[in-house]
Amino acid sequence: MTTLLKNIPSLDIDRFVQNLMNAPNRHTITHRNQKMQFHICRLSEIDDASPLDKPHIYDFFTIYFVEAGSLAKINQLESLQLNAKEVFFSKPGEIKTWQKMKGLKGYLLSFTIDYLLMLINDKNIINSFDYLMPDSQRKFALDEANFAYYQNVFNELGKEYAEPKLQSTELIRFWIFVLLIKTNRLHQEQHQLVKPKKLTRSSDVICAKFLKLLDETFTDLAKGTIMKPPRIKEFAELLNVNPTYLGECVRKSSGKSAKSIINRKTLLLAKCQLLHTQNNISEIAYQLGFESPGYFIRFFKKFEELTPLEFRKSMSA
Amino acid sequence: MTTLLKNIPSLDIDRFVQNLMNAPNRHTITHRNQKMQFHICRLSEIDDASPLDKPHIYDFFTIYFVEAGSLAKINQLESLQLNAKEVFFSKPGEIKTWQKMKGLKGYLLSFTIDYLLMLINDKNIINSFDYLMPDSQRKFALDEANFAYYQNVFNELGKEYAEPKLQSTELIRFWIFVLLIKTNRLHQEQHQLVKPKKLTRSSDVICAKFLKLLDETFTDLAKGTIMKPPRIKEFAELLNVNPTYLGECVRKSSGKSAKSIINRKTLLLAKCQLLHTQNNISEIAYQLGFESPGYFIRFFKKFEELTPLEFRKSMSA
Repeated sequence: MTTLLKNIPSLDIDRFVQNLMNAPNRHTITHRNQKMQFHICRLSEIDDASPLDKPHIYDFFTIYFVEAGSLAKINQLESLQLNAKEVFFSKPGEIKTWQKMKGLKGYLLSFTIDYLLMLINDKNIINSFDYLMPDSQRKFALDEANFAYYQNVFNELGKEYAEPKLQSTELIRFWIFVLLIKTNRLHQEQHQLVKPKKLTRSSDVICAKFLKLLDETFTDLAKGTIMKPPRIKEFAELLNVNPTYLGECVRKSSGKSAKSIINRKTLLLAKCQLLHTQNNISEIAYQLGFESPGYFIRFFKKFEELTPLEFRKSMSA
Repeated sequence: MTTLLKNIPSLDIDRFVQNLMNAPNRHTITHRNQKMQFHICRLSEIDDASPLDKPHIYDFFTIYFVEAGSLAKINQLESLQLNAKEVFFSKPGEIKTWQKMKGLKGYLLSFTIDYLLMLINDKNIINSFDYLMPDSQRKFALDEANFAYYQNVFNELGKEYAEPKLQSTELIRFWIFVLLIKTNRLHQEQHQLVKPKKLTRSSDVICAKFLKLLDETFTDLAKGTIMKPPRIKEFAELLNVNPTYLGECVRKSSGKSAKSIINRKTLLLAKCQLLHTQNNISEIAYQLGFESPGYFIRFFKKFEELTPLEFRKSMSA
């Protein structure tokens, strides 16, 4: 009998840090009186034998800044390689699996959205960071000048956390924004965008709302908070638009069909369930909203060239 | 016939910059479509023959950061010397006179309070910066580490202004906050404060409100918007407290009597009027709220050891 769960557990910063660090360190204790909302540590401080080797839904932002060495991790079930002078952003709601790391130098920064936005009156500022939108590139290579800039910011964040002084909490927030804006520029430069996406067209606004709702929905589905994914018709209802119009907006703004975006999400969660839960194929099929296991098997095979069961076996071998 | 005015004129960033710079520069033009809310320039860019040699009430914050050389200026009618590796803060409502400068290196930063607080939901954050409270020390000497820190921030601000990129306006705001918090710590260290002033005692809160109201009142008086300074009784009414209690709070919190604080403000404005307006002694006496010119003359002589007229003559000689 395995200890596999029916759903993907979610993870907060407290548990994340307890698992990453060999023992609760000084800072962990200092901040223990309230739910941890911010944490920064050196990648070299992280315990090599972390028990987070099962996927979790992280409910906070993480930023990896690699100074030296390299790191392989699983993000949204896809493997991700981070090398020296690279920075990587992940956001709340993503399914991640921790991987062992050795001889790495750099920083790992974690913070919740509430922590970040506490002082800010325009909560939509977060939507101005294009690379945090669904399906965006989140990994950036840093040239010498940018590397020095990021290193300075991470060093300041590390100092503010290790030795808090007057208004450290506020200062940390401002430094994170410096980092987020700087990265927005890297995103613009490295992806040759002519101008920043301003979400002025109504189709862009509706598509962004749809992608956000979709993200939230699949997080709830993975956690088991809801039992079935909504269909496009239901998304349209929630967004107060006509389903055909929703489809047009999504295609116009993202270049993809709403259906293909939902399929990608469904496949990701299916793979996650197959690998990390003990649920059988029928249970997974119904949980993901398929009318029968047969439909689910055909859907899965179309994209993966394996049946769900073959996939489960191939990965556990 | 001189061109002296009846009141001290106020100055916004637009006019300040037009006067400081020999000609409107590129940035001035770029930002011309709206009222200027932020400006940064190198001290070496400033025209040596600025026409701002009369006092003005500045309606914005300025920060001087001196890298090399030294600068003498008049702030609130008192002369102020700034040397290399010093930083100086002034806030809206202060009466300042521009002084010539030569061979100076560093930065001059100007911004309005609206610009600074645009993104921030807690507008009271400004009160957490102790050195911006009335009668605080605003000049700070920088050691090597702090000098490097400030230089980095000013260089970043200079770059963001000279070559605006994606989200420069937001980034500038965050950098200014980094500067303000860092300076709050300098203030705490250099003035040996045991802990930051939190304004938790009711006497501190009332005293802070009184000082703020007093500042605003004297600015209005200098501008000619109001015709007579309020008395302590009237301040107490505006603050909704008993005059005796107000006096106790002010003494408890500031160590000075409310009367002596008002006297200091009155004297400052009197000197300003004597030097820079053509108003006669009677006019100045009544404007400052004295019942007769005789009272004003006695008041003035008590502090300055000269009559108002002797003072006016001695300074214009």
